Amino acid sequence: MTKRVFNFNPGPAALPLVVLEQVKMEMLDFDGTGMSVLEVSHRSKNFETVINSAVQRVRRLLGLDDGFQVLFLQGGASLQFSMVPMNLALEGKPVDYVNTGTWATRAIKEARILGKEVRVVATSEDKEFTYIPEKVPLNPDAAYLHITSNNTIRGTQWKSFPEPGAVALISDMSSDIFSRRFDPRPFGLIYAGAQKNLGPAGVTLVIVRQDMLERVPKELPTMLKYTTYAENKSLYNTPSCFSIYVCELVLKWIEETVGGLDSMEQVNGDKARILYDFIDSQDFYRGTARPDSRSLMNVTFLLPDAELEKEFLAGAAKAGLAGLKGHRSVGGLRASIYNAVTLEAVKTLVDYMKHFASIHG
Amino acid sequence: MTKRVFNFNPGPAALPLVVLEQVKMEMLDFDGTGMSVLEVSHRSKNFETVINSAVQRVRRLLGLDDGFQVLFLQGGASLQFSMVPMNLALEGKPVDYVNTGTWATRAIKEARILGKEVRVVATSEDKEFTYIPEKVPLNPDAAYLHITSNNTIRGTQWKSFPEPGAVALISDMSSDIFSRRFDPRPFGLIYAGAQKNLGPAGVTLVIVRQDMLERVPKELPTMLKYTTYAENKSLYNTPSCFSIYVCELVLKWIEETVGGLDSMEQVNGDKARILYDFIDSQDFYRGTARPDSRSLMNVTFLLPDAELEKEFLAGAAKAGLAGLKGHRSVGGLRASIYNAVTLEAVKTLVDYMKHFASIHG
Repeated sequence: MTKRVFNFNPGPAALPLVVLEQVKMEMLDFDGTGMSVLEVSHRSKNFETVINSAVQRVRRLLGLDDGFQVLFLQGGASLQFSMVPMNLALEGKPVDYVNTGTWATRAIKEARILGKEVRVVATSEDKEFTYIPEKVPLNPDAAYLHITSNNTIRGTQWKSFPEPGAVALISDMSSDIFSRRFDPRPFGLIYAGAQKNLGPAGVTLVIVRQDMLERVPKELPTMLKYTTYAENKSLYNTPSCFSIYVCELVLKWIEETVGGLDSMEQVNGDKARILYDFIDSQDFYRGTARPDSRSLMNVTFLLPDAELEKEFLAGAAKAGLAGLKGHRSVGGLRASIYNAVTLEAVKTLVDYMKHFASIHG
Repeated sequence: MTKRVFNFNPGPAALPLVVLEQVKMEMLDFDGTGMSVLEVSHRSKNFETVINSAVQRVRRLLGLDDGFQVLFLQGGASLQFSMVPMNLALEGKPVDYVNTGTWATRAIKEARILGKEVRVVATSEDKEFTYIPEKVPLNPDAAYLHITSNNTIRGTQWKSFPEPGAVALISDMSSDIFSRRFDPRPFGLIYAGAQKNLGPAGVTLVIVRQDMLERVPKELPTMLKYTTYAENKSLYNTPSCFSIYVCELVLKWIEETVGGLDSMEQVNGDKARILYDFIDSQDFYRGTARPDSRSLMNVTFLLPDAELEKEFLAGAAKAGLAGLKGHRSVGGLRASIYNAVTLEAVKTLVDYMKHFASIHG
């Protein structure tokens, strides 16, 4: 029998078992082609069906109207840190960023490398990024306002988004897209590396509002222009076919098995509540994010000391609970409970936490 | 029983069956982790073993010394068309290109978009790119000389490479890397989208000589600098993990099952000879590339008319021979016989070609 662990990895992360089973089942013969999905042409009808279906599922799940384009790129969110200012900055206008941690800091860095006039309009750096700033000054002269919807390292998440009026809102949603419902209309562009809530590493989802495409400078390299992907349905060159194929299966799972974004949000809320309620009910484990800013995706916590944390991790591994180590930059512990992490996994984790505390507490 | 066809796709293309079987077998539990390879961290020991092994296999197969770095990027050869001039052009020096077809033309276009002074030092455009130019002027003042080692669309291939002395030779080897032995030393940089001879789409192999890294401008976006990948062992951000994993298995297959690059070259030579010898032995099919420039990877040919070509393709599909249609830009037929296409597949194709000619010839 195949051994499977409870996977709390921060990304690449757990995928739905039924998706993996389908990938396995059709690895040698995809869609009756007599080829693996790894071997079919990206210009074949079979693959076009896959990518078109993925686009439609994204549209339905997020409620996107024709004013938005759904694109699949490569290079991860890290390349988007550069592509956003390259494509969407406007001559003579500053670009606004909210700094809520490591990834936002990297996004700001790339905009500055490109020589853009960056304004950090709000930051939670004063308390080690353990909260989401309440008040974000909205400047009507900004080309855009960039935020990071969920912060994997410190375990914080925006509960509601700024409303910058006519200014385009841009968000890195790598670690919480498809985890909850939100109004897409204020967003000029949303990007997400797939490897947390959507699929395997190697593909980046970009949702761009039509009016943003008019900003794209003509003289950019072809592969760095959003218009290239928009005009060619993400098939200007060979895309990351397999990753897109798995994303389509994951999106299908959210739509058809889970029952859509509202159901997904409810399950995610339940999972997070179980963990946070337990953490709040005792003194051995301490949550690190400010309660009003807590992420429903990444639950960060500490034990009384680093030695106990090591022991906790070793015991967890033995108990089949993987990926609980905090990010190397901050230490501590972190349970990433993305869409595909089951309620059972979370309950098993809480049981282990109780047991460990009862011995060492 | 799983249906499998003979796959002559130009890319994404056939992969070794044993590789696909291994991918299938360990899809739910990779390397004893209790996770799929799609779910393991790119910073885990398990994945580090994979990527390090892939690098070492590339080094051994191509005979690369410590003067070269082996990197895995995203974005395909198309992004390399821009990254090469961005990173390796030198202030005040022209960049030289040989134009041997569609992909070289695109590489030239991107260098021009970046404002580089491009010299097309040789071209076969006069005869629709059906040959490789014999005489390539070597200019000592060039920052580099860029060639495309194999041209998938027109079915041509360099038999030996230019020797530009102190000028760095750069090659797009997307469609023939690991198909034959060559001396890597004159090359400043080699790049290859994986999806022909190396693995699935979604990862690009870049081999860069150490002295080239000194050219990389400091002010480039982080994800567009070769130094970022060199300094972080291709793990600055999450790479295309699954594609790298499959590449490692394909490289292992070349080393351990096929027996190395010399054996691979011999098999590829045998396959191409069978096809070209048959084409030359009759008048029904006509090869389109000039004989001295023929590719051992992509065999392009015509039938007496387009109607017969349609019929040929329909019959081939029924006979389990897939992917034989020529590129949409040039029409005709093309058999791509990359590393993973078996001698049996080629023999079956020739049998079908004989049979079809006997009916319609």
